[in-house]
Amino acid sequence: MSTRPILDDESASPEARALFDDIRAKRNTEYVNHFWRVMAHDPERAAELWQKLQRVMAPGKLDPLVKEMIYVAVSASNGCSYCVHSHTAAAKNRGMTDEMHSELLAVIAMAQETNGLANSLQVPVDDCFEAGR
Amino acid sequence: MSTRPILDDESASPEARALFDDIRAKRNTEYVNHFWRVMAHDPERAAELWQKLQRVMAPGKLDPLVKEMIYVAVSASNGCSYCVHSHTAAAKNRGMTDEMHSELLAVIAMAQETNGLANSLQVPVDDCFEAGR
Amino acid sequence: MSTRPILDDESASPEARALFDDIRAKRNTEYVNHFWRVMAHDPERAAELWQKLQRVMAPGKLDPLVKEMIYVAVSASNGCSYCVHSHTAAAKNRGMTDEMHSELLAVIAMAQETNGLANSLQVPVDDCFEAGR
Amino acid sequence: MSTRPILDDESASPEARALFDDIRAKRNTEYVNHFWRVMAHDPERAAELWQKLQRVMAPGKLDPLVKEMIYVAVSASNGCSYCVHSHTAAAKNRGMTDEMHSELLAVIAMAQETNGLANSLQVPVDDCFEAGR
Amino acid sequence: MSTRPILDDESASPEARALFDDIRAKRNTEYVNHFWRVMAHDPERAAELWQKLQRVMAPGKLDPLVKEMIYVAVSASNGCSYCVHSHTAAAKNRGMTDEMHSELLAVIAMAQETNGLANSLQVPVDDCFEAGR
Amino acid sequence: MSTRPILDDESASPEARALFDDIRAKRNTEYVNHFWRVMAHDPERAAELWQKLQRVMAPGKLDPLVKEMIYVAVSASNGCSYCVHSHTAAAKNRGMTDEMHSELLAVIAMAQETNGLANSLQVPVDDCFEAGR
Repeated sequence: MSTRPILDDESASPEARALFDDIRAKRNTEYVNHFWRVMAHDPERAAELWQKLQRVMAPGKLDPLVKEMIYVAVSASNGCSYCVHSHTAAAKNRGMTDEMHSELLAVIAMAQETNGLANSLQVPVDDCFEAGR
Repeated sequence: MSTRPILDDESASPEARALFDDIRAKRNTEYVNHFWRVMAHDPERAAELWQKLQRVMAPGKLDPLVKEMIYVAVSASNGCSYCVHSHTAAAKNRGMTDEMHSELLAVIAMAQETNGLANSLQVPVDDCFEAGR
Repeated sequence: MSTRPILDDESASPEARALFDDIRAKRNTEYVNHFWRVMAHDPERAAELWQKLQRVMAPGKLDPLVKEMIYVAVSASNGCSYCVHSHTAAAKNRGMTDEMHSELLAVIAMAQETNGLANSLQVPVDDCFEAGR
Repeated sequence: MSTRPILDDESASPEARALFDDIRAKRNTEYVNHFWRVMAHDPERAAELWQKLQRVMAPGKLDPLVKEMIYVAVSASNGCSYCVHSHTAAAKNRGMTDEMHSELLAVIAMAQETNGLANSLQVPVDDCFEAGR
Repeated sequence: MSTRPILDDESASPEARALFDDIRAKRNTEYVNHFWRVMAHDPERAAELWQKLQRVMAPGKLDPLVKEMIYVAVSASNGCSYCVHSHTAAAKNRGMTDEMHSELLAVIAMAQETNGLANSLQVPVDDCFEAGR
Repeated sequence: MSTRPILDDESASPEARALFDDIRAKRNTEYVNHFWRVMAHDPERAAELWQKLQRVMAPGKLDPLVKEMIYVAVSASNGCSYCVHSHTAAAKNRGMTDEMHSELLAVIAMAQETNGLANSLQVPVDDCFEAGR
């Protein structure tokens, strides 16, 4: 179904296998998901992306669960089926309850609705919203 | 600049003025922003939306600041200039620091990047991500 | 503001001027809007597009006003500021009243909202919605 | 396939079942489609959405069939597979013929095309399209 | 799965069959892909689109392979699964190697990332980027 | 107009100034555009992005001009005004002629049009387009 084959461990290059092993170690699971198995055709860039993903999604001033919910929100708005699925699963793994999921959905839906209205009405930005020079 | 005129207090209908007054009271400010002044051509629907916005964005299982950041993420993905501006301002009002803003931007950018990759590669969803029946 | 200059009548090529004149004649107005003045750098393609636009938007099984409202809906969803403005103006010219405009906005907003929900939930399509083979 | 399970009648809460029953009564069919069975994890919000949907899509200044076609246009532009399917089916139920469907597709395609051109060229909005202050 | 049936040769109208035969002849293959078999419900518009596609994608100042990669980039950004698949296949047919595919993906991802940042930050366009009047 | 102030050289941190100086040196111009002046509130991430941008856009199997045109295509599809402007300017700097620009626009428009059709029709992907497992 993908535009590049999903690499299994046998057909992967040594660099790709090293990436799979690092993913397994960091996530403490044997399973390596399709995204990385397709990205691994370009193992250097895939490894770089994996490093960046860990850095960006790590605890900081924002909680990792909050970050996963923001990720779902962007992915749903872009209609990215894969990312909605994988990051909803990640959010659940990080403690997103059913009630939190419902609130996330409500905010996404609310934003979608007013985005449609503001874009249809072409409302000009108020001066007070500008961060200034 | 909008596709409907921005209503000032004088030209607004009594129903629209009642909405403006409620917005002023709830937000404790004299300022009523353009979105509501354009929406107020249809005061019934505007009032309904205003009620819903307060309900959805109120404290719940998710913090109002988290909700505002999710709102910004959706609006940026949809390229809605007005909503990015108004909800970034709202997030700052609710305590979003510069460092939190930077992390929000980093997550949005990361999601945009992998959305582009997953959509280009058409990666099939892993069975383990399905919520099941 | 555009990525190609807006051609005035003097700087336009003879082919571009012929297009402008045809637009004036068909619309019965002296004014030629920016879109055509920017497109006219490639007068052949611009003329072809102008022919197609007239054909697609002409009365058929759907009313021209209905077509203009569908045009606004697509343009708002894509965040195309220019097209929202120009086709909202066109819809008003074809008789869209304030009340019709309000209903158009309500449907766009409703669709945006449920698009966000269905994409967030990744709801599988029901068999009964398939047109079959 | 969805990020929340599709609720059947047995596993649904009493509130969710009441919603399903109302959908059945209003639509005069036994079938309750997936969207509502997934939304029903949050029965209060689902019921509210169902009420709003009926209100927005009811006959008004715009015909229900016109509203369904606008809904399809937004959903196609947002790449929402589920909503394209369900609202194309709804439009057919409300009388959309094959010829009307073809015209709807032609307008969506035309708008998509000029959205791409106007966004690539960043054409500035003509003063005459502004609704004024 | 489509909202209109996929026409096989037997059920297609004479005009649709003529289109299929022209596609076969121009592409030198017996296979006619689903897009044209669904579009063929409106054979006149389908034939017009087929003519335009050949004209736009033909060798010009840009190489046909470059054009196919641009097509993939647009389709991925719009989340159009069908077009990503069909035009990635077309690009491979025109000589896109694995390394070129990797670079295409890297540029799409980079653009997606900075689009997200520029839209989140609402960066104003620099005067020097304007093409002038 | 941006959601964060545009940093001039005086108000920028030493890390931000070092970034500006590197941009000046690599581009051989005194001018530092708004994007980097807004990103520089988070100088570490901005510097990382700058390094990546140079790497991704450098000559490889694809020509830098081709890469810039792909960048414009993604940005137009996402409605990112800033990126359309800045990368159209970059493409012109790298040799994009008016005729190449016209062909780029024609491919973007064609892809937008068929994306709209394929998404409206929900055309199922042909088996022959799958890259296989």
